[in-house]
Amino acid sequence: MEWEAIEARLNALLEAGRHGEMRGAMMMLNVVDIAQYMEKLDKEKLLLVFRILPKDISSDVFTYMSPEQKQLLIESIGDQEISTLIDNMFLDDAVDFLEELPAGVVRRVLQSAPVEKRNLINQFLRYPENSAGSIMTIEYLEFHTGTTVEKAMEIIRKVGLDKETIYTLYIIDEARRLVGTLALRKMILAPQDALLDDLMNKNPVSVCTTDDQEKVADTVRRYDVMAIPVVDKENRLVGIITADDVMDVIEDENTEDIEKMAALTPSEDEYLRTSPFRLFLNRIPWLLLLAVVAIFTGMIIENYEGLLKNASVVLTACIPMLMDAGGNCGAQASTLMIRGLALGEIQLRDIFKILWKEFRVGLLVGLALFLFTLARVLVVNQASFLVALVVASSLYLTVIIAKLIGCSLPLLAKRVGLDPALMASPLITTLVDATSLMIYFNIATLVLRL
Amino acid sequence: MEWEAIEARLNALLEAGRHGEMRGAMMMLNVVDIAQYMEKLDKEKLLLVFRILPKDISSDVFTYMSPEQKQLLIESIGDQEISTLIDNMFLDDAVDFLEELPAGVVRRVLQSAPVEKRNLINQFLRYPENSAGSIMTIEYLEFHTGTTVEKAMEIIRKVGLDKETIYTLYIIDEARRLVGTLALRKMILAPQDALLDDLMNKNPVSVCTTDDQEKVADTVRRYDVMAIPVVDKENRLVGIITADDVMDVIEDENTEDIEKMAALTPSEDEYLRTSPFRLFLNRIPWLLLLAVVAIFTGMIIENYEGLLKNASVVLTACIPMLMDAGGNCGAQASTLMIRGLALGEIQLRDIFKILWKEFRVGLLVGLALFLFTLARVLVVNQASFLVALVVASSLYLTVIIAKLIGCSLPLLAKRVGLDPALMASPLITTLVDATSLMIYFNIATLVLRL
Repeated sequence: MEWEAIEARLNALLEAGRHGEMRGAMMMLNVVDIAQYMEKLDKEKLLLVFRILPKDISSDVFTYMSPEQKQLLIESIGDQEISTLIDNMFLDDAVDFLEELPAGVVRRVLQSAPVEKRNLINQFLRYPENSAGSIMTIEYLEFHTGTTVEKAMEIIRKVGLDKETIYTLYIIDEARRLVGTLALRKMILAPQDALLDDLMNKNPVSVCTTDDQEKVADTVRRYDVMAIPVVDKENRLVGIITADDVMDVIEDENTEDIEKMAALTPSEDEYLRTSPFRLFLNRIPWLLLLAVVAIFTGMIIENYEGLLKNASVVLTACIPMLMDAGGNCGAQASTLMIRGLALGEIQLRDIFKILWKEFRVGLLVGLALFLFTLARVLVVNQASFLVALVVASSLYLTVIIAKLIGCSLPLLAKRVGLDPALMASPLITTLVDATSLMIYFNIATLVLRL
Repeated sequence: MEWEAIEARLNALLEAGRHGEMRGAMMMLNVVDIAQYMEKLDKEKLLLVFRILPKDISSDVFTYMSPEQKQLLIESIGDQEISTLIDNMFLDDAVDFLEELPAGVVRRVLQSAPVEKRNLINQFLRYPENSAGSIMTIEYLEFHTGTTVEKAMEIIRKVGLDKETIYTLYIIDEARRLVGTLALRKMILAPQDALLDDLMNKNPVSVCTTDDQEKVADTVRRYDVMAIPVVDKENRLVGIITADDVMDVIEDENTEDIEKMAALTPSEDEYLRTSPFRLFLNRIPWLLLLAVVAIFTGMIIENYEGLLKNASVVLTACIPMLMDAGGNCGAQASTLMIRGLALGEIQLRDIFKILWKEFRVGLLVGLALFLFTLARVLVVNQASFLVALVVASSLYLTVIIAKLIGCSLPLLAKRVGLDPALMASPLITTLVDATSLMIYFNIATLVLRL
């Protein structure tokens, strides 16, 4: 059934007040889809549908609602309902939710939350933003060394297994230090009296609470694991991070890189939810900085006033083409560097290999553009062969230099501890502009003797 | 211990011919790290280390080696060893591996593979590139409707559980159609005589073999699942895709978008493994296309030859600044659109909301750049107020139009079925160039009456 049809059917049941059937219909849907359906409801209907929802999935549905709808709902329900809601949410989801709310609402939610959960949430809210600690969850299975398979199975049957546990058992010593991990599948197949210590992987990959989420994502991707344990400075186990949360981290980090590459201040808010003034603030710093750099490009042109006034207008007409081609060539090289560095495919020590490769690519790309431009200036602009040669050979040199600037700046940024993504198209373009004009005017003066 | 120290110790053991200790040392490492260690070995040592490796992890280590080392190893070992290797690999890894090899080597590997595995691999190699079918695995647990928990547990104990199964049971009917999924944790806690049919989730999310991997990634992210079943056109279960493979898909799709946004033909090869000529081919098509578009920009300038010759050189000196600022403003807007569309945060129907928002952002950004440029032309270039006004107000108008072009082109591309990522900086810049020069020269002619 199409989504529009599902929506229409649910709306009809809601309008007709057939709440029992409505509950039955929703039980057939995924919680993510129910949350999407509730996105368009007004405050009154939202509350009604939330109360119609089967109790065992209402916290799950709540987790997938938008910040706006969550807040709307929180404002409508009683403290007891908030308490139950928070208690049934996974800790990491509850923390995410609170980070999105205004301070006043957070206070009310925390006051209503059960004491134990409240203390945990407060502790989690203190981890630095985007650290492993801030995205981990505490829903995992831990056992002390010396536990038998039989005993472990008994405990699992008692506490049950949550969605987030991902079937990995974490084994800790008497000081709560992580000493091993064990896949549930291995335990199921082992004899009842075996010790977990003998079955476990004694070299578990882990991350630290203060590690940046980018490092978490890199580690999970590198070792192909479905969940990774999080330890504190003393190697004590404090949480786990599951693959589904890592996927969101990967998308966030990619968005951040892409935004930086377009001279935007990265923002965690969705575009449609961001005010024009906020968007203005995200965009203007880089634009102003680049405008300052462009002053020098202007100075170069002013410096060659005589050349431009006396020579054919074709020289001026080719400035945009020269600048664009240089900028694009530099951007291509810098993009490949930025991406390669982000994925760990390129290391700083490769720099000479890279410069040599880009030089050869520049020779090829430059030659193709040289021939094209020579023909273009002769045919389209009807200029003399000497002028065409000036334009085309300036372009050739510009392409090679643009490739070298484009590939070295991201590596240089990485070397001095800056984010390579900052060395993308806008900055490269502006730098290459100045270089290409210098080359252009010098060649023109030399060849045309103006 | 630092990685360099580990490497040195392994090398020392290898040199000394202490193979037993070498095996013991490697057993303490993660298979991913062992593969990294083997990356630098020459053919002879590679073969030696591979044979020293404990047999139960050698296929795993092989999976994580680079295509070059894999091929080197395949060329050194006998058919029987190849057969064992392939047999112990997960099917999806074996298929990936074969897709990277030259045709001659593929034939030899397939001839050596066990018959059953060979047929499966051949079938997988026929799925379209980047389709769900090409990345799925067949290592999953399936049960027919009517199976009891007791019977299911018995089967699981017999066949064991693989790393890739991820503890979800798939339930099929007599025609092999997928009718439900069941988490192992739910089954462990259920009574022995319960039927899987009564415990299972009857609305499993699934993808089709022919779906693009991008759709697979979107679905997995949307529903926060750790593995997703793959069905054929008749809804028959044929495989599953696990979250760790989806992470690689997400990174691949992001790389593809980023490369397209920098006017590069997307490539699946790592930069350092790509030849200069191949890089040249990836870059030249867009550069030539953009050079053609730039012909028009040149024509506009030639058209206003008189204006440029008679007016202050400041007018010419400001062309690069005007073009860069316009290009950057357009790129900022288009980047947010491209990313928003990729993440599903922006829909086509939002276009008027977006245009209105970008118009307001343009007013603010334009105002800031207007004031900066007015001051810059007056102070730095010592130009008259009228000239400064011409430059600054042209910039203001350019910024607003660049924002509107930048946000509408990706949406337009999406509308007509093109990839929005193509409408990024390079194309936007070249289009905005022409527009900004038109605006500039018209305002100059009007105000300065030249």
